[in-house]
Amino acid sequence: MKHKNAIPRVVIALGGNALGKTPEEQKVKVRNAAKALIELIKQGNEIIISHGNGPQVGMIHLAFEEASKINDKITTFDLPECTAMSQGYIGFHLQNALQAEIYEQKKPWYVASVVTQIEVDKDDKAFKNPSKPIGGFYTEEEAKAMMALNPKLIMKEDSNRGYRRMVPSPKPIRILEKESVVNMLDNEFIVVTCGGGGIPVVREEDGSYRGVTAVIDKDFASGILAESVHADYLFILTAVDRVALNYGTPQHQDLKQMSVTEAERYCEEGHFSSGSMLPKIQAAISFVKAGEGRRAVIASLDKAPLAVNGESGTIIYKEE
Amino acid sequence: MKHKNAIPRVVIALGGNALGKTPEEQKVKVRNAAKALIELIKQGNEIIISHGNGPQVGMIHLAFEEASKINDKITTFDLPECTAMSQGYIGFHLQNALQAEIYEQKKPWYVASVVTQIEVDKDDKAFKNPSKPIGGFYTEEEAKAMMALNPKLIMKEDSNRGYRRMVPSPKPIRILEKESVVNMLDNEFIVVTCGGGGIPVVREEDGSYRGVTAVIDKDFASGILAESVHADYLFILTAVDRVALNYGTPQHQDLKQMSVTEAERYCEEGHFSSGSMLPKIQAAISFVKAGEGRRAVIASLDKAPLAVNGESGTIIYKEE
Repeated sequence: MKHKNAIPRVVIALGGNALGKTPEEQKVKVRNAAKALIELIKQGNEIIISHGNGPQVGMIHLAFEEASKINDKITTFDLPECTAMSQGYIGFHLQNALQAEIYEQKKPWYVASVVTQIEVDKDDKAFKNPSKPIGGFYTEEEAKAMMALNPKLIMKEDSNRGYRRMVPSPKPIRILEKESVVNMLDNEFIVVTCGGGGIPVVREEDGSYRGVTAVIDKDFASGILAESVHADYLFILTAVDRVALNYGTPQHQDLKQMSVTEAERYCEEGHFSSGSMLPKIQAAISFVKAGEGRRAVIASLDKAPLAVNGESGTIIYKEE
Repeated sequence: MKHKNAIPRVVIALGGNALGKTPEEQKVKVRNAAKALIELIKQGNEIIISHGNGPQVGMIHLAFEEASKINDKITTFDLPECTAMSQGYIGFHLQNALQAEIYEQKKPWYVASVVTQIEVDKDDKAFKNPSKPIGGFYTEEEAKAMMALNPKLIMKEDSNRGYRRMVPSPKPIRILEKESVVNMLDNEFIVVTCGGGGIPVVREEDGSYRGVTAVIDKDFASGILAESVHADYLFILTAVDRVALNYGTPQHQDLKQMSVTEAERYCEEGHFSSGSMLPKIQAAISFVKAGEGRRAVIASLDKAPLAVNGESGTIIYKEE
């Protein structure tokens, strides 16, 4: 089923790693991204924005944990609440930057960020195998010392970039605020939603939803979002310009495009690291396969304006 | 001007102090509040919810400040970003609790929280006289020690409850996301907005908005919200059951109702403390005076269901 108007709908997933490490860095990054995003609208598309929160939610969670040890007026916060905070923080900067660009371009558009919960299955096997990296990077020695201090902590190597804390990453099932998001889109508002993959909640027997200690992968969440709003394009913006084979080795090869068949083969060959490029490719494949005329693009946030024109990024398409 | 449908519109301002000190406390408090809020809709009203964030934004701000001293992977965050975080955190719990109550009552209603920025005047005199209490309560000795350590810090006595950090509280001028909020309301969504008084921003010469180190009073923000959506009622829910004269003294007297003339006199007589009850009364007076048939109610979050029926709380009305 197509959405009710004929304007192409584009879901844009912004990587948490591409947003910088401090509020000041983030402001600069999103201001730059806003130009590309507004350009997409000027080209005749309708946009819906989601974003990651790996580094941010990790820092928020850690800050309360550390501060609560030295100040009894500060409490700790579980991951759902930390993701909710990251949605407020990143949503604020995103909508602020988009509003600035809209004003500069003299357009009559409005933007709003919606706090978003996403249902996951309480029996998802991810709860037994934490695989989603959050927070900062540590050396092997630091990671081992941290795990020795806190036996519940699981730290693993992440894409040759260092050790990071790993948390469960269950698959998203349903966006609880879907109706609100679709209503705003149908009324031509720019919406920021599913921040940090959405706040993970499970359904209780009484019909209510309870936050769970996990972080949903924002690429999978963006895939669910794209399905929910019947999107035509899925843009996944990250810290690298293009998808690469043999990433970081002498055989490193950037890809301008790949068919879903090629993409599936590369996944099987183990070219992409879990928790990083793999979920992006998987989300792109699922999205492209599930409907006619769909395309996914993986590109860098910095070069998003070029990706819009096909001059940067990797296009994933279905063979005719 | 009246809004386009004839259903009475009620802006409900929830006090940050009434939301508890921990996520667990907050969940219980908002679940209880949700019953009263949904009851208001069942009685034939349309509701828009705003909330305070004094204790929460203070704790969030302090947590990053403390943690950044002992962990170089953690940065500090300025108040606008901390308010944005509190909007995500409190908005999440509020919409989750409302959804649970809506499910229990078998109603077809939807709810969403919108990240909200509010414009303030960069020349507002409040920037030179910090008067809004945030964060936890401290003894006089603790407060003096903290100020000695950080000369920028201003701590003052708050309503005989202890010392708290004071920050500038400029007057709200305009809700940047007004159009999104009104669109959702007009489409019969329950909206949570203006959390923590909104994220304070000032307009720059280039037309963009920049966050400023301040916290807007949520009662004044709720007043602007009530004007923006052409509300009929303003409910201000806090930690006390009723407005009182001679609060906390042997002459303490609870008020069931007061006219705006009486309310103005009580303000002049100094019955209400700034940063606490005074802005609530001032917001109520402004709202009631500015339109026909308007009423404001100040009541406790716990007894909100009774306040709905006039069995608790203080009604502020205009003389015929």
